[in-house]
Amino acid sequence: MTDTATTLTLVARLEAAREASRALAIADSAAKDAALEAIAVAVETGAARILPANELDLANGRENGLSTGLIDRLRLDEARLGGLAAAVRQIAALPDPVGEVVRGRKLPNGLQLSQVRVPFGVIGAIYEARPNVTIDIAALALKSGNAVVLRGGSAAENTNRELVALLQGALASAGLPADAVQTIDEFGREGATELMRARGWVDVLVPRGSAQLIDTVVRESTVPVIETGAGVVHVFLDESAELDMARDIVVNAKVQRPSVCNALETLLVDVRAAERLLPPVLDALAAEGVTVKGDERVRAIRPELAAATDEDFATEHMALEMSVAVVDDLDGALAHIRRFSTHHTESIVTNDVARAERFLAEVDSAVVMVNTSTRFTDGGEFGFGAEVGISTQKLHARGPMGLPELTSTKWLVRGHGQVRG
Amino acid sequence: MTDTATTLTLVARLEAAREASRALAIADSAAKDAALEAIAVAVETGAARILPANELDLANGRENGLSTGLIDRLRLDEARLGGLAAAVRQIAALPDPVGEVVRGRKLPNGLQLSQVRVPFGVIGAIYEARPNVTIDIAALALKSGNAVVLRGGSAAENTNRELVALLQGALASAGLPADAVQTIDEFGREGATELMRARGWVDVLVPRGSAQLIDTVVRESTVPVIETGAGVVHVFLDESAELDMARDIVVNAKVQRPSVCNALETLLVDVRAAERLLPPVLDALAAEGVTVKGDERVRAIRPELAAATDEDFATEHMALEMSVAVVDDLDGALAHIRRFSTHHTESIVTNDVARAERFLAEVDSAVVMVNTSTRFTDGGEFGFGAEVGISTQKLHARGPMGLPELTSTKWLVRGHGQVRG
Repeated sequence: MTDTATTLTLVARLEAAREASRALAIADSAAKDAALEAIAVAVETGAARILPANELDLANGRENGLSTGLIDRLRLDEARLGGLAAAVRQIAALPDPVGEVVRGRKLPNGLQLSQVRVPFGVIGAIYEARPNVTIDIAALALKSGNAVVLRGGSAAENTNRELVALLQGALASAGLPADAVQTIDEFGREGATELMRARGWVDVLVPRGSAQLIDTVVRESTVPVIETGAGVVHVFLDESAELDMARDIVVNAKVQRPSVCNALETLLVDVRAAERLLPPVLDALAAEGVTVKGDERVRAIRPELAAATDEDFATEHMALEMSVAVVDDLDGALAHIRRFSTHHTESIVTNDVARAERFLAEVDSAVVMVNTSTRFTDGGEFGFGAEVGISTQKLHARGPMGLPELTSTKWLVRGHGQVRG
Repeated sequence: MTDTATTLTLVARLEAAREASRALAIADSAAKDAALEAIAVAVETGAARILPANELDLANGRENGLSTGLIDRLRLDEARLGGLAAAVRQIAALPDPVGEVVRGRKLPNGLQLSQVRVPFGVIGAIYEARPNVTIDIAALALKSGNAVVLRGGSAAENTNRELVALLQGALASAGLPADAVQTIDEFGREGATELMRARGWVDVLVPRGSAQLIDTVVRESTVPVIETGAGVVHVFLDESAELDMARDIVVNAKVQRPSVCNALETLLVDVRAAERLLPPVLDALAAEGVTVKGDERVRAIRPELAAATDEDFATEHMALEMSVAVVDDLDGALAHIRRFSTHHTESIVTNDVARAERFLAEVDSAVVMVNTSTRFTDGGEFGFGAEVGISTQKLHARGPMGLPELTSTKWLVRGHGQVRG
């Protein structure tokens, strides 16, 4: 296939998505929910087609030396398919965001102004090795009235081909345009590059995956991007933190699922609580197999720990490894977070109202918590049904992205002949 | 000055803005409003410093052959300074957007979730030859708790230097950091390029000016951009349009201020109303000195008109020139708008409820109107005090941008020891 032929076909695919987006934008909620139910049924009953394709991807992945973590993300099984179907039904059960009136008033000259939610139109997604994202993003996009163009990466291409066929069949069965879900996987890297340059065809692009993938998309895309980012996530144990709560939160935040972006990477402890809290917390982490590096003051308490460098404090380990530092006070914790945080999630454990409120006000992150585990930064946990990702940028969406984050707005102005004087 | 020295100084400027943004983010509304009042007073009483600097820019502009339109935008006088001061006071009188709770709920596990408005942090603005933008953007940014880095262009550099000094003095007088307003005009084009690459220093960049300026910023910036765009604005006269209303709206939309983005560029008329409406509407436009080009069916009624080409239909004239086309029906109007609109503002004149609702639902523009002039797409008219620009993108902000559009949000999560199971 020549370059020109590739481009032409890709453009045809984008054109078809845009055409379909117009029908979807004005589709009734009932039709969209029927399509989602059809998707859930197809996912539940489609194992015989989906799992062999997934086996093929897994075999290729092992051959190409994919990491255990990536192989785990790539794998589908009956239980995971069941979970996906349940997520799709949860999304169907949420209120339709399209048409919601966000603001409105009657102007002094009698003009009636209302700002209503509308679909973006066409959403592009570039992601890697996670076939569940194919279903999650497509379901969220359809519920919010958008067409979607998916670039799922070569590692999952066989699985994604089956899933996209399933999604298109479900759309058609509900009387909606099958073209509202498109894949461009067969165009390879060139296709991804084209998608990033498809300004005018694609309204917003969501990258999901490694820091490198996200950086590339942010740098290369002329389509507006919502950055879903890495999480160098902090927990700060204030002087007043209760030991049991501190230990439970730190262990849960680090250990419950270490490979994800909301897992804890750096623990900060107020110097006045270090001798009381650090030994039992470090023991609990060691018991869970966590490898800890510490700064000087941590190593004064636990000399056997390796020294943590600035590079460690800037690292998202995504594994049972973490860094610990002792800080002078809340200001010290805020300064450390300001320097090393990726603005994803930070939590304080405290019983002091004033410090809790200062932490909430002054930490500049998508999610700021008091007395709970950072693992709760999640669209599902927040009640969004599923998530498109967790935005670490400030524009448009910040934190877990659900249905409202997949919409834009427009202003409707109703008059009776008013002109400007 | 060497390149390195320039860059270092520019970085110091950005660093100072970021530092100041932290104080501004947690400043009381009262302090911010006091700074705005000080700005209004300084603008009102500062003519002796501002106007001579403006005279210098005007003289340079004439020497460099700036167009009459640009010279007009560049000019300040006592009346315009009074208008600017009034806009600043209007902004001060608006509710503080920071801290507004946008959404919130208590999760089943007892976590209290609230999404609150927070400042972006540092807003960058790149604009041309309009010193009023310096005051408008700075006032909106301060009210919404943001620091601002301004690149106002060489044509207005003397005026802007005075205005920035005035803004910084007003901030200091209210006990807020003067560094919250920065100019990088003295770094020239290189400074603008640096600003577009200042990811991590600047949270959002707003370009305001020519299509070329906006294109450059969209293409080059790695900082998230809010595009404020050109307006190829349409009015559609439906079969049921009343003549008087149609004529008043068309004339007002075209003539009241032809050099701005919300002015009418293309008039569409339903073929069934063409013979009834076109002659009197074209006569009224001719009486106002408007030059009209028409498609074949328009020229069948007015053979003396020049023929409108596709290029004409795609042009934002910003002058007393426009194009007119006859369409078969509402679908024809929608198809024409889909093809040529820049998604800014479109208006239908109609007395038919079903067609009005279809137009509102199906036109994919920032502002969609029924029976009123497109000139009302304006932050001031919408009650926002002033505007940062009119966004024609779908991400984050769409239409006139006021205070809420200059904020991001963050999620606050309050728990009592919850961990994820």
